[in-house]
Amino acid sequence: MLPKTVFEQASKAVLNYNNTGLSILEMGHRTKAFQAIMDEARLLVKELMGLDDDHEVLFLHGGASTQFMQVPMNLLNDNETAAYADTGVWSSKALKEAKLYGKVDVVCSSKDANYNYIPKNFSVPANAKYFHLTTNNTIYGTQWQSIPKVSVPLVADMCSDIFSRQRDFNSFALIYAGAQKNMGPAGVNLVVVNKNILGKVDRALPTIMDYRNHIKEGSMLNTPPVFAVYVSLLTLQWLKQQGGIDAIEKINNQKAEMLYNAIDSSALFKATAVKEDRSKMNVCFVMKDASLEKQFLDFAEQRGIYGVKGHRSVGGFRASLYNALPLTSVAYLTDVMREFEKDH
Amino acid sequence: MLPKTVFEQASKAVLNYNNTGLSILEMGHRTKAFQAIMDEARLLVKELMGLDDDHEVLFLHGGASTQFMQVPMNLLNDNETAAYADTGVWSSKALKEAKLYGKVDVVCSSKDANYNYIPKNFSVPANAKYFHLTTNNTIYGTQWQSIPKVSVPLVADMCSDIFSRQRDFNSFALIYAGAQKNMGPAGVNLVVVNKNILGKVDRALPTIMDYRNHIKEGSMLNTPPVFAVYVSLLTLQWLKQQGGIDAIEKINNQKAEMLYNAIDSSALFKATAVKEDRSKMNVCFVMKDASLEKQFLDFAEQRGIYGVKGHRSVGGFRASLYNALPLTSVAYLTDVMREFEKDH
Repeated sequence: MLPKTVFEQASKAVLNYNNTGLSILEMGHRTKAFQAIMDEARLLVKELMGLDDDHEVLFLHGGASTQFMQVPMNLLNDNETAAYADTGVWSSKALKEAKLYGKVDVVCSSKDANYNYIPKNFSVPANAKYFHLTTNNTIYGTQWQSIPKVSVPLVADMCSDIFSRQRDFNSFALIYAGAQKNMGPAGVNLVVVNKNILGKVDRALPTIMDYRNHIKEGSMLNTPPVFAVYVSLLTLQWLKQQGGIDAIEKINNQKAEMLYNAIDSSALFKATAVKEDRSKMNVCFVMKDASLEKQFLDFAEQRGIYGVKGHRSVGGFRASLYNALPLTSVAYLTDVMREFEKDH
Repeated sequence: MLPKTVFEQASKAVLNYNNTGLSILEMGHRTKAFQAIMDEARLLVKELMGLDDDHEVLFLHGGASTQFMQVPMNLLNDNETAAYADTGVWSSKALKEAKLYGKVDVVCSSKDANYNYIPKNFSVPANAKYFHLTTNNTIYGTQWQSIPKVSVPLVADMCSDIFSRQRDFNSFALIYAGAQKNMGPAGVNLVVVNKNILGKVDRALPTIMDYRNHIKEGSMLNTPPVFAVYVSLLTLQWLKQQGGIDAIEKINNQKAEMLYNAIDSSALFKATAVKEDRSKMNVCFVMKDASLEKQFLDFAEQRGIYGVKGHRSVGGFRASLYNALPLTSVAYLTDVMREFEKDH
């Protein structure tokens, strides 16, 4: 979900970009016009995230699945160990790929409780090359509210909560995020990398996989996904107009609070994630009487609410509160929940 | 460059896809609507290229630069040899990446003449795992008019002439093409692969790099570049309406003939590529008196012709005659060339 104004601007640019008479879809990536788009998008990410000069911003092809491989390929030698937190399906996929490039130490896991919490009280060995975590877990509705202090470089998959809340972004050695939650359309990956951690592996890297090549070429090593970068820029501009991450975080907190309050105060619904680890992006909840769930889904659809069915591994419902979702939509959902409760 | 009707349809879908009230940019890839787009796009490629059941069609993230790595990773063992034809910058990049995965035998090269011809009279060793060629060379304006008969699997980079002319597509073991010339916007790669050549390497493949995983998941192993696939479908539909590859090839031949005739009959201009190897997609030409080149570029720009400057490694001019360029545009260019010639 992206802001309506972004769709309007993007739609116009597909016909006629900035009154050039050219479609954004036929714009060469070596043109001044696209160079300006790429430059502004990279700068805006630096500004919005408050990044220092060690941190480089790249827009790369693909999604997180490519980064699952690319991160260890660039950072981990065969005989070295990387530490991974296992907080769900996406973490598990990430650590599986890392095993192809070195040793993996799963330093914590919440698999024992179907990933309904964020692990605490674990330690990361000082000799680990990096510590990888998934900041928000869409399927299970959990989120790291604070990032553990560790003595090794931090690597984070922020696909589903990037730009939704403040973090100390400079404390991360590498952050990656597929665009399609809070930043843009599917098909582009944001990578923020501290350049000082690169160039330390022994293996020969394929040209397209080496982050240093992308940095050197200003994120234009090959033809970038032009349209996806452009729509990301539009969304970043929108975010800045809203007041940046601080401002959107306040609204996101209100949205999450409103929905969790409705769930907690209900006799019918209950949240699935442990309270202190609840995600502010993906609210997962079920019915105390599971036999009512189908009825509620129908009831909600009749009232124009679609896409709240939970993932099959958790069941129940999932409401995603990404940046572009207005507070009024959450209010409407809670109204529908109360209406259903009155009838049942 | 894509057809105008494609831009119109794409622009509309960014606001409201098929009267769903949803933007194509926010459409989940697991929806029925996107599944239908992906299914139709894959089928249409099979139909337009006349592919048999052994050949699978995939739409993958990235461009050719990713395939330079992915092809040898999937097809070549460390101790095996792949044969490559070196016909320009892109071929050279492809074979450089292959060296990371096995041995490379450069069986022919036209580097000795700044790649202005397609090599003949070379042989491909029968023990080569595959033979790789770049069917069209954008920078130098050369093109393989016929594909050499070899006894090993054929692999082709068809980025810049895919869907522009007939080939015996089933004779290829693997074809790849970034979308951005004749098929769609940057950010998606078409891969056509004969499934029988897969699964024969010893190395452990990263999940996202293994073509078999993409085949198994119907080209939806991870979130695909939804919009780029959709625009590719629109372009493929347009191509079918034009009468398919046979029909577009006829027009492309007319366009190329018209421009090469104008060059050959001119006292000022000359083509750079050897006659029998001339590309029908990218016509490269210079001026016999190089000091006039800047004047001609200005002259053409004053008459609304942009982007005909040649690549720096060849100089002069390059006119790209991709599918969506109408014959009238070529006629206009040749008129402007004659007008300039009259004045000089």
